[in-house]
Order: sequence, then C-alpha cells, then structure tokens
Amino acid sequence: MSPPETLPARWQGKTITLAHGAGGRAMRELITELVRPVFENPLLAPLEDQARIDPAVLDGGQLAFTTDSYVVSPLAFAGGDIGRLAVCGTVNDLAVGGARPLYLSCGLILEEGLPLETLFEVLRSMRRAADEASVSIVTGDTKVVGRGSGDQVFINTAGIGAIPPGRATGPAQVRAGDRLVVNGTLGDHGIAVLAARNELALQIPVESDSAPLNGLVEAMFAAAPQLRWLRDATRGGLATIANEFAQEGGFGLLLDELALPVRDPVRGACEILGLDPLYLANEGKLAAIVPAAQCEALLAAMRAHPLGREACAVGEVREASPGRVAVRSRFGGERILDLLLGEQLPRIC
Amino acid sequence: MSPPETLPARWQGKTITLAHGAGGRAMRELITELVRPVFENPLLAPLEDQARIDPAVLDGGQLAFTTDSYVVSPLAFAGGDIGRLAVCGTVNDLAVGGARPLYLSCGLILEEGLPLETLFEVLRSMRRAADEASVSIVTGDTKVVGRGSGDQVFINTAGIGAIPPGRATGPAQVRAGDRLVVNGTLGDHGIAVLAARNELALQIPVESDSAPLNGLVEAMFAAAPQLRWLRDATRGGLATIANEFAQEGGFGLLLDELALPVRDPVRGACEILGLDPLYLANEGKLAAIVPAAQCEALLAAMRAHPLGREACAVGEVREASPGRVAVRSRFGGERILDLLLGEQLPRIC
Repeated sequence: MSPPETLPARWQGKTITLAHGAGGRAMRELITELVRPVFENPLLAPLEDQARIDPAVLDGGQLAFTTDSYVVSPLAFAGGDIGRLAVCGTVNDLAVGGARPLYLSCGLILEEGLPLETLFEVLRSMRRAADEASVSIVTGDTKVVGRGSGDQVFINTAGIGAIPPGRATGPAQVRAGDRLVVNGTLGDHGIAVLAARNELALQIPVESDSAPLNGLVEAMFAAAPQLRWLRDATRGGLATIANEFAQEGGFGLLLDELALPVRDPVRGACEILGLDPLYLANEGKLAAIVPAAQCEALLAAMRAHPLGREACAVGEVREASPGRVAVRSRFGGERILDLLLGEQLPRIC
Repeated sequence: MSPPETLPARWQGKTITLAHGAGGRAMRELITELVRPVFENPLLAPLEDQARIDPAVLDGGQLAFTTDSYVVSPLAFAGGDIGRLAVCGTVNDLAVGGARPLYLSCGLILEEGLPLETLFEVLRSMRRAADEASVSIVTGDTKVVGRGSGDQVFINTAGIGAIPPGRATGPAQVRAGDRLVVNGTLGDHGIAVLAARNELALQIPVESDSAPLNGLVEAMFAAAPQLRWLRDATRGGLATIANEFAQEGGFGLLLDELALPVRDPVRGACEILGLDPLYLANEGKLAAIVPAAQCEALLAAMRAHPLGREACAVGEVREASPGRVAVRSRFGGERILDLLLGEQLPRIC
C-alpha cells in the first residue's frame, strides 16, 4: 500500500484542536487515519508505544543514537520544508558520525488551529525524505499546545543507526597536511529560508540544499577508507564546524577563500545584507578531513554522486595556530575565522 | 565528578536568548557549561552529534525505541516537573513494552526569556530521575524560539532499551478470565497539575505520581513470567488504556468500581469539578493483564516494591462484549466506559 497523496475528505478544511493531543479518540483517529498511513511501515504498524527492532540490523556494528528538534520558520521554503529538514538533519547527524541510518522517531508539537492540510503536507514531506534516505519512521508522539504557546509545528526526530566495524573517525586521526573538503556550495539553505520570510524586497533564485547525505557518505568511505573526520555544516555554517574541528582536535585549519564554493545569488544576497556565507546554515553539506594522498580519489567519488557534484578541497590542516581557523584571502593575507557569538539568523532549522 | 547543585555564578540572573539556539559560541557555552555537567556521563562527554553505543548492552535482546514530547503547564507542580516527566514518561514507555531502558536523548525547545535558573532546575530534575531509573542521557539538542512562539520549555526524550529474549507481551497472549491489575491510586498526576494551575480556589493535598517504573516492571516479570500485557496509564488515564486493550485484543474488560483505588482528595476534587478519575492522567501508574493463577504472586511482588505498595486487581478479561470496557458499579449495575473524544485537561504531560 503506497502512502495517500491527498488528505482524506473528512479531514479537509479542519484544524488541529487541543483534543488531538489529549490521548482520547480524537488523537487516536488523527494517528491511525492521518499519520500512520503516511509513514506506513511494518515496525510502526502495531502502534505500540515503542518499536521493536531486531539487533541483526546492526550487522555487528556499534549502535549510533542522535536527536534534533526542528523549529524552522516559515514551515516551507524553496527546496524544502520542516518535514524534509527533520528527516534529513537527523539522517545526516548519523551519517557524518560514520553510521548507516536505520530508524527515526517523530515527535510532533502542534499549535491549536494548525490546518490539517499543512500537517498532512509536512508528514508527506517527511515520508518522501525518509524514502530518499532509506530509513523508516517507526515510533512517534503527538502533543498539542494552545494558540500562542507554540508556532504551527515543531518536530523532534531521534535516529538510530549502525556504525560498521572499523569506522573510527575523530580528532585523533587527523594529521598536519590533511585536506578539508566540502561537497558543494555554501549558504544556500540560510538564504532560501531568509528569502521565504518575505522580509527581503529581493527575489533570490536559491533553493535550500536540504538532502539526506548517507548515500554520499557511504561512497566517501568506500573511496577513502582513511577518511579522518566528518561533520555536517548546519547551524553556524562551515565556519562553525571548522572551528569545532580545530578546537577539539587541537590543530590549525587554513581555508582558501578562492576555493570556497558559493553561488552567485547567495554571494549577492550576503553582500547586500551584510552576511557571511561561511556562517550561513546548510542542510545538505558536509565537511570532511582526509589524508592528502586520498583527496583526489575522494573528490572523484564525491563528484560521481548527485549530492557531491560540486565537491572541492577548501583548506588544509596545519600545526601552526592550534585551535584556530584562518582564511587565506584572494589577496594572499590571512584573517581569523572565529565562532560567532550567536548566529546570523534565528530559527533557520 | 558529581553534577553541580547550584547554577554557576556567571549564569545567575540571566535568561535564554536567541543566540543560545544558534549554533555559535553562546550555544556551545550553554551546552558545555550548563547542560553537560548536569547530565555528565561517559557517552555524552565527547559532545559529538551522536552517542556511540556498544551493542553488547542489548545482551542478546531486541532493541526497543520510543519517543515522547513533554509540554506540561505549569513546568512544576507538587511531586514533579517537566524534567521528571520527560525522563519517567519515556522510561515507562520502554518498561511497559518489556524493555530494560538504557539511554535517553534530550531535545530542548526553549522560549527566549526563560530564566537560566529555571532551565537549570529542569535539567537537574531530569538527572535525578535518570539516576532513579538507572539510565543515562547520552545525546541532545537545543533550539530557541522567540517570545510568544513557545512556552518556556518543551522537552522531547527518545529512549532505547533492550527487550530480554522470551518477553512476548501483547494481545495474542490474553485469555478470558485473566485479571487486570494496577500498581496504585489513579488520577494523582492530573489533579496535581490542575491544582498547580491556580485555577482552583482549592488546596488539594495531592502529589503527582511521576516515577520510573522499570524497577517495578522487572519485579513483575520475575514474579509472573506469563505477564500478558502491560501499558502505562498516562494521557487519558486507565479508561483509555483499558479501551486500547479491549479494542486491540478483541476481548471485553469488566472493571470493578469498588476495587479502583482513588485517593480521597482526588475523588473529592473530581466530584467538585465534574471529572472522572478513570480518565485523569497518571505518570507512575501501569495496568497489566495476568493469568488469574499468577495474580496473587504478581500482587505480592508489586506490593513489595515501593512503587507498587497499593497494587490491586481491578478487573477481569471476558469473552462477552468484545472491544468494550464496562464498569460494575457499587450497586451491581454495569456502565460502558468509553474513550473520551479528547481529554479533560490539556497539556497534562
């Protein structure tokens, strides 16, 4: 049975009420008639309060466990919506830790008055993203808060995955001379969400890069088994994970400004708005540290994957300036790329 | 190192700002200086985006996976707070599925302006409840929304546990004549939260029953290995899970009104307010179906546990009226106990 494509007639034009979160018949109907058919899979079907999973799925690996909540505003934007983020973000947290994502949970906090059409589209978007990532949403929960105590839809997803034996990534593996690579252009998600807020008088032709990266990561490990360290560049952008790498690893990182891939409309919007694309959120971008000798093989494998076509090396690990990230400018000078106190844009994911 | 008991001086008098959810330095300081020390454990320590867990913890059992969000209002009430609920509720979902709870995640959605003192107390309450339940909080996430887009603190916890081999509970095991038991008084949590809302002109001496039930459940399985089916009586109360049992199992349930344990102040508040304690939420109560021959042994084991001292049999499975729950009144008549459309009280957990 494939998931429904249209909201069942009896739910059309209706909105979420407090009763939908109260544990009684209204909630049960919402879950069984609207949520379960969209997420449909054998583990979810019993609607017990927990999913039961055969540990054989770990295939001898370690169990990875992660969580993220999603509060992006507005709910939908060019290239994605909160449902797509909620699946891709958690899948990506697992993938960059070396895990193969397997199962997700879905915790919904809905605001009274939410149109059921909106909820249905968010759930369908989650299902499509889960299918792209080859994961299943196997357990969930729904709460409703009164008008003004929430903002339409907040989603939490937790995820579990399996880390194959022998995949040890982390700071201990990194050496001076290693390269830093990214899988494509930076800042697309941040600008796409900003554009959707209608606070700009600009039309910016940029789509969010929101995508599940687990397939790309598998291709990367296959091509460069000595991949040192991976992380996804979400809130705080590449600048933030570069700083995390440098500080946690106790080494310096030198980025090459000319090599950093940024789309023209993103660069233009940043110049007008006084933003730095290195700090803008991405939802389908990762950075990886790889031995220089494996860098070309890694980039070739990444470019052969649809989500890595614009992959490139953007920097290098060095012994100098441990804990610091610097950018070599187009004019040859170096500037420090620090952590921001906050971020440029609230509620970006 | 034991968790801190007072909020570090530099955080006192401060409130949550949007920067605390933005991925930069402010968020990092909040996590490393305030959240991590309270939750402190070896798996959380690396602050990677995921916890890595050795599958040996499953001890040959199945992996259980569950999630719940918590939006209770107010945040604190007699006998508990949102932090305690967020740990106990998810621990209990695992336990009643036959799983031994192991690890929890913690996803925080904070409203701008939240006093850090409040956050610190909620986190400490989570830690204390986790210690009581012998689980660790091993991964997490923090988001901040602007004033008026949330309500102080929402928490999602997902949980993973191990279901020992041979523990098969569920409707297929149930037989006519089986007994329904509960571990104590009904409705305490619902009335405690209602009292804390200050909407009542009444002083009601009732505390929430919020507690982790995994220890009790282990004692129950030890005493009655043929325990048929367990569920915790949260939103919607005993009436709701009795209906779920009956409908999913396709059998009838007859409850005995005189046997149902309700504290006098809860009964009194219900009479004044027109509420039915059978529909009130509990956060430390479960119902179990057990073969009649094992019922006395089960009750004896429950009463020997601090969270089961008032355990009693309250009903019986029957072939008649499949899918229906009836209550035999003190006068001998039977009334149908149906699912409510919603519940009596919003944001009870």
